[in-house]
Amino acid sequence: MDTVDKLSAYAKKINYDINIIGVPKTVDNDLTETDHTPGFGSAAKYIATTVREIGIDSDVYNLNSVTIVEIMGRNAGWLTASSILARNDYLKAPHLIYLPESTFDDEKFLNDIKELNASGVNNIIVAVSEGIKYADGTYVCEAASSGLTDVFGHKNLSGTAKVLENLVRDKLGFKARGVEINVSQRCAAHFTSETDVTEAFTVGQAAVKEAENGGTGMMMAYERVSNEPYKIEIKGKEISKIANGERVVPAEWIVNGNDLTDDMITYLKPLVLGEPKLKTENGIPVYMKR
Amino acid sequence: MDTVDKLSAYAKKINYDINIIGVPKTVDNDLTETDHTPGFGSAAKYIATTVREIGIDSDVYNLNSVTIVEIMGRNAGWLTASSILARNDYLKAPHLIYLPESTFDDEKFLNDIKELNASGVNNIIVAVSEGIKYADGTYVCEAASSGLTDVFGHKNLSGTAKVLENLVRDKLGFKARGVEINVSQRCAAHFTSETDVTEAFTVGQAAVKEAENGGTGMMMAYERVSNEPYKIEIKGKEISKIANGERVVPAEWIVNGNDLTDDMITYLKPLVLGEPKLKTENGIPVYMKR
Repeated sequence: MDTVDKLSAYAKKINYDINIIGVPKTVDNDLTETDHTPGFGSAAKYIATTVREIGIDSDVYNLNSVTIVEIMGRNAGWLTASSILARNDYLKAPHLIYLPESTFDDEKFLNDIKELNASGVNNIIVAVSEGIKYADGTYVCEAASSGLTDVFGHKNLSGTAKVLENLVRDKLGFKARGVEINVSQRCAAHFTSETDVTEAFTVGQAAVKEAENGGTGMMMAYERVSNEPYKIEIKGKEISKIANGERVVPAEWIVNGNDLTDDMITYLKPLVLGEPKLKTENGIPVYMKR
Repeated sequence: MDTVDKLSAYAKKINYDINIIGVPKTVDNDLTETDHTPGFGSAAKYIATTVREIGIDSDVYNLNSVTIVEIMGRNAGWLTASSILARNDYLKAPHLIYLPESTFDDEKFLNDIKELNASGVNNIIVAVSEGIKYADGTYVCEAASSGLTDVFGHKNLSGTAKVLENLVRDKLGFKARGVEINVSQRCAAHFTSETDVTEAFTVGQAAVKEAENGGTGMMMAYERVSNEPYKIEIKGKEISKIANGERVVPAEWIVNGNDLTDDMITYLKPLVLGEPKLKTENGIPVYMKR
């Protein structure tokens, strides 16, 4: 979106007749001025499903265990928060959810686990964002981090689950396992949200139409009109308000630094609905050739 | 199956009128006397699908990268081998496949990557079993292993992909990423093989029938009658031949220590066919309460 901003400003400056519209696309769901972003609903559905499955997998054992599921998100906890949809009537996994929007504290984390265990939960599932940080601003994963940066200069944040796994084992003596959902959360096209996929086509089409009508220097955004029935409208928004911005989980939706209010569930629910028909060949999904 | 063996021997010894039949169940596919095991087909399908998706995810970047996908398997490479079904006409991921049945060698591995890269493959996907070992018998992951053992006394084998990721980065300077598919390969019930699920019910029913008919001290096994059309028969096999045995990938199916013959594809193909109807609620799969 920063590129859309710069290109449209430059085109205007040199009086070049071209219309530049940003089409949002990020599983991270962290763009401003839009209710959500294409890709997020499918990633949220995959994450909630996977966390539910991990919960059932761990629940068959009669011992004290803690499974820490690491989910993408450097500064915004939307993907990690979406794991809340894994909960059902008989299994409350993930029992604890830690987002980068809250300060992380080792002692509080260990106490949260001890309290849950004391209340009768033997197999505890924890969802954590890769980017959770201590009060002094250092990443939890930095203890184990290699110090490498990605092509954008971001720190290589793998290892948060591993750090917490070791912490739980050392301090509480529970069986502990870190599970990094890794790249599948952004590329598992075999299980997507029909709502998300449909909206993604619609927002692309809306961008073309907007450009045809002379629009430029904007991003197409989702505006949520109602939750029940779920309805969105697509509108062009001024790009300068969006470029380099970041939308995080509202503080008032976070409970005790380890859970979320029902506002999050209300927000997420419509985004993960439906499964598109999947094309397979010899039992394996067929995807478009790029 | 060892328990079936012991219990049925003991029942016989004390002249106790009870029939004990083993029903196979393992994603590892490493039981002897059976063509394959319930659970394997679904795990194979999930792994092949995930590796295909990881291949596409990595293929969008124009740089030299190596993605190492770590798959379960201490001694038997069936699950890792199943990633071969990810290949299609335009994407040959996984480009390299390393099973525990072959000795692993760092220099050969690095040469395999260099050769592939020289032949024009920029984004290389490698499938490795967690249990690959060096010629001296030490596990590749032992460099990074915590030395912990699981409840059965097995060494805690996580970290193989991480060890190889660091090796590739240090020695070749390529972008490298380790991806551990982790527990999802055994519990991702949202994407299963209909063939596998159907057979699993059938083999359970056959066991009950066999017991009713007086059978004991055996395991129900799949016998493959034909590949096209795919047809199996279910037969009781003497448990003492199976208990504590282990079936690994035939040496003659392994090519150059880093690939597999078409025999593996012929073997795997029918096992991953079909997708059962998935029940969802609010967009997330609903599973049985235990």
